[in-house]
Amino acid sequence: MQKSAIGIDLGGTAIKGAIIGERGIEGVVTRVPTEAHKGGQQVLDNILGLISELIEDSGRPSSSFIGVGIGTPGFVGSDGTILGGAENLPGWKGTQLYGPITKRFGLGVSAANDVTAVALAELMFGAGRGVKNLVCFALGTGVGGGIVTDGKLYKGTHGMAGEVGHIVVETGGIPCTCGQKGCVERYASATGIVNMAVEMAAGAGDGELTEFVSLVRKNPVEVTSKMIYEYVAKADPVALKVHNRACDMLGRAVGVMINALSPDRVVLGGGVMMAGDVILETVKSYAARHCWPAIFERCEIVPAQMGEDAGVMGAGALAHEQFG
Amino acid sequence: MQKSAIGIDLGGTAIKGAIIGERGIEGVVTRVPTEAHKGGQQVLDNILGLISELIEDSGRPSSSFIGVGIGTPGFVGSDGTILGGAENLPGWKGTQLYGPITKRFGLGVSAANDVTAVALAELMFGAGRGVKNLVCFALGTGVGGGIVTDGKLYKGTHGMAGEVGHIVVETGGIPCTCGQKGCVERYASATGIVNMAVEMAAGAGDGELTEFVSLVRKNPVEVTSKMIYEYVAKADPVALKVHNRACDMLGRAVGVMINALSPDRVVLGGGVMMAGDVILETVKSYAARHCWPAIFERCEIVPAQMGEDAGVMGAGALAHEQFG
Repeated sequence: MQKSAIGIDLGGTAIKGAIIGERGIEGVVTRVPTEAHKGGQQVLDNILGLISELIEDSGRPSSSFIGVGIGTPGFVGSDGTILGGAENLPGWKGTQLYGPITKRFGLGVSAANDVTAVALAELMFGAGRGVKNLVCFALGTGVGGGIVTDGKLYKGTHGMAGEVGHIVVETGGIPCTCGQKGCVERYASATGIVNMAVEMAAGAGDGELTEFVSLVRKNPVEVTSKMIYEYVAKADPVALKVHNRACDMLGRAVGVMINALSPDRVVLGGGVMMAGDVILETVKSYAARHCWPAIFERCEIVPAQMGEDAGVMGAGALAHEQFG
Repeated sequence: MQKSAIGIDLGGTAIKGAIIGERGIEGVVTRVPTEAHKGGQQVLDNILGLISELIEDSGRPSSSFIGVGIGTPGFVGSDGTILGGAENLPGWKGTQLYGPITKRFGLGVSAANDVTAVALAELMFGAGRGVKNLVCFALGTGVGGGIVTDGKLYKGTHGMAGEVGHIVVETGGIPCTCGQKGCVERYASATGIVNMAVEMAAGAGDGELTEFVSLVRKNPVEVTSKMIYEYVAKADPVALKVHNRACDMLGRAVGVMINALSPDRVVLGGGVMMAGDVILETVKSYAARHCWPAIFERCEIVPAQMGEDAGVMGAGALAHEQFG
């Protein structure tokens, strides 16, 4: 019989849960409200309730599952305590995740940062199948990531590994919320791309007053990375400038990780990557300039295969890795 | 009985070998000439001869050893073939290391890049004892490194991991032999520090004509990092400028690796570190500016404990890791 785990993906507004088998989701993904404003204990209670519901709906005894995997914002210590970094979940820091779940369901628990866990989903179900060493970049509101070494998710001693978004790629560059300057997140996240577009549109010279520039100038708060990439597709010179700068910076960070870890594959995912091949190919060409050729030529840069259920599949993959 | 391995450290001029037990070297380190100019086959023959000599001198049967570990310049594939990157050993690329040794001595072989293997020596015998996740920077003629994840040396799929010397730390910085610009190796290696000193001395203004500056200007080809650090100890302002720049750049690379891997410890070693605490403390203060505080505060930056036999101990540690 196929081994199955319970995967729980904790988000700021909803908690997603599903039974995750060796080939992916078994059945449907169930969502319950996080109720983050009610504090850490309520969030934990909601997770316990969701696990209970998933087990009940499965019609199977809890002992038939190999374990529970949880992806959460922030950092998780090796004993299952939330160490911090989950600012959108007040009171979540300090919560002990493993004890209450094991006590109630008699199952082992493996938790990790939600974005980090997605790397494991790619390894088990997606763009990382068949390889052992993987670095994932997730280009969303910020830039997150995950690292797989020798076929296992690399969490670091304190569950904090994979902060690839804060690799500095430009000396004295754009100030970042983390206190550094020039973090790749400031350029290659959706937020970063939009901010660069607004700034470049504002500063566009007389020869650059394209349709894209007037649109951005007229309504800067409604600019999205999707909209920018519609104009990249139309070869708008200012949109292309934004695109090239984002890909240059991302290519530098990708290059740093390839040099340091010599992975089989670098996986680029997250909402920004919906724009597709144009980002992939441009990042490849910039990354090549920031790597030793012998290392670079042995590494593939590929798009993520996981979609919107990446988080819950990553959570399930955590349990498969630990207890499978 | 204590388990023992045979450690072989291949260098450009000499091959060092020793019996490496669970606590370190057992007996003495034996040296034979590499004879690099005679080609790859001769180098391999010299390694085979040295292993034979070590076994004979030990007075023990070869079967009493757990295996052979080899540290070599360049990159080693997972099957023991030298993939490249060993420019000072003509004809070494393409050599198959494992087959001939196993055939002759009936022992398993584990090989890796020599500098990378030193990380494992620090883990097993030195500054990394008791921890699981480690990043080593070796500041020598160049900057090399090694990464230990979850208690194991991380080689990457093609034995090329750990090239921390080619992390770009300055946009558009000093051109590097690898084709990039601004690699940390250009600033924090002995070569890099000396080059910066020569350049800064040449460009020193009227208010900066210190004893150090005249010495460097008079005899630029004889400047060494040791000499520079003698003037750092005397608080020579130009020597201090060189020192601060080297440590700033190294701190950036250390910061990148801490953010990405959240290791327990970063170990700084190599000849340049002979200058001691002044480098360690300055790098710490710069690295702190290039890390997330929550990650940085959980990571120690410590000096290497391995001395000139680091390579042969690292080689032995490779065998202990694989066969112990």
